[in-house]
Amino acid sequence: MKALVFKAPYEVAVEEVPDPRIEAPLDAVIRITTANICGSDLHPYEGRAELEAGMVLGHENMGVVEEVGPGVNRVKKGDRVSVPFNLACGTCRNCNDGWTSACLRANPSGQPGAGYGYPKMGPYRGGQAEYLRVPWADFNLLELPAGDEHENDFTMLSDIFPTGYHGTELAKVSPGRSVAIFGAGPVGLMAAHSARVRGAAQVFVVDKEADRLRLAEEFDATPVDLSDGDPVEAIMDATDGLGVDCGVEAVGYQAHDPGGQEHPGLVLDNLVSVVRATGAIGVVGVYVSDDPKAATEDAKHGRVDFTYGAAFEKGLSIAAGQCPVKKYNRELRDLIIRGQAFPSRIVSHELSLDDAAGAYASFDKREDGWTKVLLRPGGPV
Amino acid sequence: MKALVFKAPYEVAVEEVPDPRIEAPLDAVIRITTANICGSDLHPYEGRAELEAGMVLGHENMGVVEEVGPGVNRVKKGDRVSVPFNLACGTCRNCNDGWTSACLRANPSGQPGAGYGYPKMGPYRGGQAEYLRVPWADFNLLELPAGDEHENDFTMLSDIFPTGYHGTELAKVSPGRSVAIFGAGPVGLMAAHSARVRGAAQVFVVDKEADRLRLAEEFDATPVDLSDGDPVEAIMDATDGLGVDCGVEAVGYQAHDPGGQEHPGLVLDNLVSVVRATGAIGVVGVYVSDDPKAATEDAKHGRVDFTYGAAFEKGLSIAAGQCPVKKYNRELRDLIIRGQAFPSRIVSHELSLDDAAGAYASFDKREDGWTKVLLRPGGPV
Amino acid sequence: MKALVFKAPYEVAVEEVPDPRIEAPLDAVIRITTANICGSDLHPYEGRAELEAGMVLGHENMGVVEEVGPGVNRVKKGDRVSVPFNLACGTCRNCNDGWTSACLRANPSGQPGAGYGYPKMGPYRGGQAEYLRVPWADFNLLELPAGDEHENDFTMLSDIFPTGYHGTELAKVSPGRSVAIFGAGPVGLMAAHSARVRGAAQVFVVDKEADRLRLAEEFDATPVDLSDGDPVEAIMDATDGLGVDCGVEAVGYQAHDPGGQEHPGLVLDNLVSVVRATGAIGVVGVYVSDDPKAATEDAKHGRVDFTYGAAFEKGLSIAAGQCPVKKYNRELRDLIIRGQAFPSRIVSHELSLDDAAGAYASFDKREDGWTKVLLRPGGPV
Amino acid sequence: MKALVFKAPYEVAVEEVPDPRIEAPLDAVIRITTANICGSDLHPYEGRAELEAGMVLGHENMGVVEEVGPGVNRVKKGDRVSVPFNLACGTCRNCNDGWTSACLRANPSGQPGAGYGYPKMGPYRGGQAEYLRVPWADFNLLELPAGDEHENDFTMLSDIFPTGYHGTELAKVSPGRSVAIFGAGPVGLMAAHSARVRGAAQVFVVDKEADRLRLAEEFDATPVDLSDGDPVEAIMDATDGLGVDCGVEAVGYQAHDPGGQEHPGLVLDNLVSVVRATGAIGVVGVYVSDDPKAATEDAKHGRVDFTYGAAFEKGLSIAAGQCPVKKYNRELRDLIIRGQAFPSRIVSHELSLDDAAGAYASFDKREDGWTKVLLRPGGPV
Repeated sequence: MKALVFKAPYEVAVEEVPDPRIEAPLDAVIRITTANICGSDLHPYEGRAELEAGMVLGHENMGVVEEVGPGVNRVKKGDRVSVPFNLACGTCRNCNDGWTSACLRANPSGQPGAGYGYPKMGPYRGGQAEYLRVPWADFNLLELPAGDEHENDFTMLSDIFPTGYHGTELAKVSPGRSVAIFGAGPVGLMAAHSARVRGAAQVFVVDKEADRLRLAEEFDATPVDLSDGDPVEAIMDATDGLGVDCGVEAVGYQAHDPGGQEHPGLVLDNLVSVVRATGAIGVVGVYVSDDPKAATEDAKHGRVDFTYGAAFEKGLSIAAGQCPVKKYNRELRDLIIRGQAFPSRIVSHELSLDDAAGAYASFDKREDGWTKVLLRPGGPV
Repeated sequence: MKALVFKAPYEVAVEEVPDPRIEAPLDAVIRITTANICGSDLHPYEGRAELEAGMVLGHENMGVVEEVGPGVNRVKKGDRVSVPFNLACGTCRNCNDGWTSACLRANPSGQPGAGYGYPKMGPYRGGQAEYLRVPWADFNLLELPAGDEHENDFTMLSDIFPTGYHGTELAKVSPGRSVAIFGAGPVGLMAAHSARVRGAAQVFVVDKEADRLRLAEEFDATPVDLSDGDPVEAIMDATDGLGVDCGVEAVGYQAHDPGGQEHPGLVLDNLVSVVRATGAIGVVGVYVSDDPKAATEDAKHGRVDFTYGAAFEKGLSIAAGQCPVKKYNRELRDLIIRGQAFPSRIVSHELSLDDAAGAYASFDKREDGWTKVLLRPGGPV
Repeated sequence: MKALVFKAPYEVAVEEVPDPRIEAPLDAVIRITTANICGSDLHPYEGRAELEAGMVLGHENMGVVEEVGPGVNRVKKGDRVSVPFNLACGTCRNCNDGWTSACLRANPSGQPGAGYGYPKMGPYRGGQAEYLRVPWADFNLLELPAGDEHENDFTMLSDIFPTGYHGTELAKVSPGRSVAIFGAGPVGLMAAHSARVRGAAQVFVVDKEADRLRLAEEFDATPVDLSDGDPVEAIMDATDGLGVDCGVEAVGYQAHDPGGQEHPGLVLDNLVSVVRATGAIGVVGVYVSDDPKAATEDAKHGRVDFTYGAAFEKGLSIAAGQCPVKKYNRELRDLIIRGQAFPSRIVSHELSLDDAAGAYASFDKREDGWTKVLLRPGGPV
Repeated sequence: MKALVFKAPYEVAVEEVPDPRIEAPLDAVIRITTANICGSDLHPYEGRAELEAGMVLGHENMGVVEEVGPGVNRVKKGDRVSVPFNLACGTCRNCNDGWTSACLRANPSGQPGAGYGYPKMGPYRGGQAEYLRVPWADFNLLELPAGDEHENDFTMLSDIFPTGYHGTELAKVSPGRSVAIFGAGPVGLMAAHSARVRGAAQVFVVDKEADRLRLAEEFDATPVDLSDGDPVEAIMDATDGLGVDCGVEAVGYQAHDPGGQEHPGLVLDNLVSVVRATGAIGVVGVYVSDDPKAATEDAKHGRVDFTYGAAFEKGLSIAAGQCPVKKYNRELRDLIIRGQAFPSRIVSHELSLDDAAGAYASFDKREDGWTKVLLRPGGPV
């Protein structure tokens, strides 16, 4: 089959690789209809997270079940499904507790958490390909209505819609609260959409890209343009000096200060300033424990320096981490089906798998308008 | 009346000061029966938090209502009461939400949160004195059974028992979970006691003072002696390499590394290492936003540098701040009354108010056995 | 001043009564701008809840502070405020816990819970009048933006918007869930609106009045017309036989079966049938412990007979009771201010206080189109 | 193998039946070391729940894995395990949400929830036998430490310890609260033990059997003897007329009034009276939707008549149903291992499987001292 293969930093190519097959009784093989490129695919692409050459990329996958192993008893050939980016066993302690993001058994390294086509997440190939093997298929797969309706909405269920929603869950967004979201990339925009779904009264989204801020407005959020000055001041002004109840970090440690310098603690500093005393911050922008290319010696080892003294004085809670997709994807699916959610608004490109290498290059350069790219390994749906 | 007055760093004295009186319709005046010295009293004592000369110290207070203003309609003269260290208005948004630690109206500075005899907490005098004025008395005071039974237990209700309990609440301690508490000072010990009250299966307490570790054992916790080597390793070994579900920070930013150097991020580093993926950390050890005597330039401005990358990868939640005492003190009182809690075990000294200056000096030097000092402004109870 | 006075069942009149005045240091007197007639005002009106002659009716009140007692330190003359229907002391255990609906001190009868102008809720006069005395004013009053904007939305904050919302809280409505609401009176409609605010994917509203079902549609709910057949069957059909996650009871014990017979267990039976296993039911329709005019001997003593065996087998939770308005009114106010909630859509009549007696008669007969009546004691706003 | 077979009401016998075998890839076969007789086994025994002749009884099972199917990848031959009484698929919506008690796929009847050897719970044989087949073994089985330590404590993990705990969870028991438990059978006693584990300040247990009340005292609860008079009055007196915060129903619909008459609403009436306003009631005593031998026509169809009007006025929540064992059994196991829980205190008999028929007869007659019977199909451990 054809698949997008990682060769070396900044070098990916669509190549022929062996078809995936049923390797264990609980496996399924999925024919991919849509696979998205994710902002975090750029970490290995840029060499900031080490990936072995030859790995197939792609952890935002959906498609149709092609074949199942003999122990699979729930999903069956022909089912249309979404594949959560966390690959989980379904029977360990963390899976039992709903933390599929920290499955204790799926990653042979022994680290909690596994995934598809990603550094440190186990040997599992990604889904920017014609087919994908999914272990523990009955547990991992979310069933979708047959057909091709809502394809571009449903494809957001594998990662970024739940991830944005998780940010608002960690930030304790509830009806009537005010929220500041830093970052208007796909995850930040999904957090804005989620904040409205959860009944937030006021939603601010901070970024400096005009096209992304326009999308924030489409999700009924108030855009705050970093290029216009200090976002903390802007939000304090808009909230009568009180600040917001909830903050979402959707940027990560690669944040850049106005001078263009990478500055890992920058967004946390801003959130500690802008969230009011007793508030909560949800961190879904990625921080890592080691990064050979990081800006400072501390950052190379995942140390981050921020205004924790003020966070204590304000009594803030700061919760972080990868989203356990299964915790949210069924409900988000139902909101899409009932017309209450429409995450596909962020889609900027629908491309053939053959165009994937070019798409990585454009997306990595943050070319204007490249918000969210969908790949169609089987052609247009 | 007599009161313990702050004169200058390392200089306090018992002096005559004017009696407190009813200044507003909702005030009460309390005759103090017991006032404790708190570890955080040492922050102004050591000059690490600036306090104006002449202030009466003391925020861990209990006693008997002596007089009430005309708007007080619940408590009455003769009631035995505990005075939470947070002084709160009872009617602002944060008080409505149970966050008396962040009352929006009691502190004339406009900062959330007020208290007695403490830097930045408003103009209110402390209770290491014969009498104390308590504003919004009906809201702030917790009624206790008449008489003098359980005096040494009840006196822990004004601050450290709820504060230790708050640490376990922020750390999401629940039945069957495992907990690591860093710091076996009074707050850490109260956290250990609270963890057992909440049904923890396993409780570790880390410190280096033998007398404190012995007390931890009395509260049915497993002592981990820092002098014996790396506490992270010790706890990982005792949990089959899994780490604990919950962590409590009961040390604060003045932590010292084995070399005796002050190191603000040290305890957070250890907690991030020792708490398992998906776990929670509660921070009740104090961090501050400015400290002129801090070890580093960063620390002077409340910046703390720790392994946040690993915290993200593990999906940890870190919640912090002063305890909203009213959220817990009634239930903790009832546990004392019903014989299910016995916080007085940590009391090491019961002294006359006249001995207060010497007690500060001994307590500040961490002299052996000076765990918790109670002052009796009216003599022994 | 002029006020609507209860004389005898089915007999109310606007009369001159003495002006309210500050009776205690924490009192305020409010000049009423809008007072609504509530469905539960019909209980005393119809003689099904005994009220002493001469009582001023009205517990859905808003207005402007006219005068405050010497102990009032937060609200002040001129503030525009909403008055929650629960009258609460702010300092008892239940008030501390957020249960102002069960205040332990405000009702001289010793029963938990007090209110304005209502049977068993204490001696406090209601607000269908020019002025209203509000005890413990700082605690009870919710501040509103000055002016007269949103008057018809804000007037829903004193009771039915929070009450409908409370139904959805007790029913555990959260994003993506499905909800069935029995009763499309004002409370049921507010529950439907609240369910959407909370992100429900699917909302059914059951009633038999066409005008109310039309309003349900305006709040984006699916109307289920009782006249068209069994509502349980209709909802099971619309949910592929699965039933809904959440049920709200907004009818009460005076439900009538298709034959026109009063049948106290009818709605609970339907909810137990229609809510899926593990689901939750929130009961805000009123049930009472004694009613001399009830249909059966059992009902006279508040006994209700329903399919509890099935409720157990399905593992349902059923939570009930008056709404603690303060728990929700600030957030609901902010949703109105930010344009995310618009409860005024249910208003059918805006009348002078002088028209109150006739309005009671029409409302009691459920005349077509009499959904929600607002009285303006000071004339139009 | 030998197994206890149901023949007809009041007639059970140990007989040879075919050995269970691996029927599906996810099955395991367990060699039973201990199988308890449960109070609910008496429902089919007495003919109040219809069971087909030939069924093997027993849903409280533990043992050692003897064989696993090819799709089993977590547990393995030789593992010592506890078998939750709910038999669940692990991949349906309810299992995903932690509601294994309402698994949507395991019961061929289509009803939510399946189990072993029990009416309406599917075709699965029970474990009062030498061997037991367990479907979806990786999901259902809880691993225990190897060996035979704590056998009598661990055997409580399959049902009654989690079930008693579930009662306290539904009743919202938390540190410092007061609790009244109706019924001192095994489940009521486990609820009492659980209430203490959860930090309750005060625990009452109501029953009329002296031996059970003595056991309640051993679990540090206050016994309330029904034979001494009205238990509501006794508890109100012991709580200064306030009532308790939490109530647990551990009797069920077969409650008998002092006159010896079966009275399905009796315990709910008492709980509504004894739980204070805003409190919560957890119902784990069994109610059923049909019972041909019930006392009244209503009860035959699962209708129960109780003081729901008062429940509404008090704002009570009433939550009910079978325990989802997996939600609690790991934490309860760890409490046993760490010496914080000791449910085996209720064991009254440890018998050979051959003695099972006689044990049923004695247990059914509530003979003095027959509190909890353990069967050892493989002989003493």
